Amino acid sequence: MPNFQARVLVNLRPSVLDPAGEAARSAANRLGVKGISKLRIGKAIELVIEAPNEQEARKKVELLSDRLLANPVIEDWNFEIQSIK
Amino acid sequence: MPNFQARVLVNLRPSVLDPAGEAARSAANRLGVKGISKLRIGKAIELVIEAPNEQEARKKVELLSDRLLANPVIEDWNFEIQSIK
Repeated sequence: MPNFQARVLVNLRPSVLDPAGEAARSAANRLGVKGISKLRIGKAIELVIEAPNEQEARKKVELLSDRLLANPVIEDWNFEIQSIK
Repeated sequence: MPNFQARVLVNLRPSVLDPAGEAARSAANRLGVKGISKLRIGKAIELVIEAPNEQEARKKVELLSDRLLANPVIEDWNFEIQSIK
């Protein structure tokens, strides 16, 4: 069966506070890097999955993203997928 | 000064174990999503930074990535950057 490589990006919804991101922004300032107006920390999940075709692979990754990788109450997700030669 | 949007991806080096990723892979299996041969969890940092030009923006993001966002002992990083109109 063909293999597909996917990258799922999970980010906090814009309305949700990101204390870790704010801490990193302050630390950047102390490091001498000025001018950062936004910094938010999300997750990037790299996975390889077997499926008969791209449509099935997308379905699997959507289920995973919505049920396992992200918390849809506070997080948004999106993904890119491509077949591996 | 122009603003640039960057996405920094921070991933564990291939030689470093990823217990959280392994746990997610097992959970996916229990959820009924079969055929995942790899699953690794990294960080995706979205930031907006002010700089006189793209070269300076890249320098700043490189410094941030190497010194603050990633731990180069166990993590690799790369980033994409684009100017915001």
